Amino acid sequence: MIIKKVESVPKEPVDDAGVKGVKKQVLLGPADGAPNFIMRQFTVEPGGYTFYHRHDYEHEIYVIAGSGIARSAHGETPISPQTIILINAGEVHQIVNHGTEELVFLCLIPNV
Amino acid sequence: MIIKKVESVPKEPVDDAGVKGVKKQVLLGPADGAPNFIMRQFTVEPGGYTFYHRHDYEHEIYVIAGSGIARSAHGETPISPQTIILINAGEVHQIVNHGTEELVFLCLIPNV
Repeated sequence: MIIKKVESVPKEPVDDAGVKGVKKQVLLGPADGAPNFIMRQFTVEPGGYTFYHRHDYEHEIYVIAGSGIARSAHGETPISPQTIILINAGEVHQIVNHGTEELVFLCLIPNV
Repeated sequence: MIIKKVESVPKEPVDDAGVKGVKKQVLLGPADGAPNFIMRQFTVEPGGYTFYHRHDYEHEIYVIAGSGIARSAHGETPISPQTIILINAGEVHQIVNHGTEELVFLCLIPNV
């Protein structure tokens, strides 16, 4: 059993074209011996956004704090604490912080 | 993309010997088309506890609210919001609410 606190996990800036003001923490992953899926936490500063992209694996998202929108090919949906999202493989998606506070969410992916 | 709120998901009592005061919500699972892993949220009332047991798949846990302890074969560890836990396949484990408020945590499992 591995037990730790979120604050003990380093925040890595995601510096890439198409991303603004995003930091990532790998809370549980291969380095911990997690065999099947990876728990990451993302922190998006006000005005920041994640990639608008698609890929061949799903996301399972749980919003912890802050507010913003989830963008898909079908439009935008407001998100706030305790919003949960399933983004299927192949679906374009983006998370945008339209709020005035940090947007924090868990985003889990399969260990592929 | 499926978007919903935690409060929209029914809470199912877990009524079984060895469990006290526990309710489960399947936030994202096979009914949503989640292919690889299942996101559940558990709510444990003060004085309540989950099974003390083991099984052949892992848990990835993230504590949302409340406080308590995680019990393993090696002892007890306090848990509180933003505690994260990896319980490996085969490890005995139990979550106990020693606090005065509801203990709420996410517990993800592979879709086996």
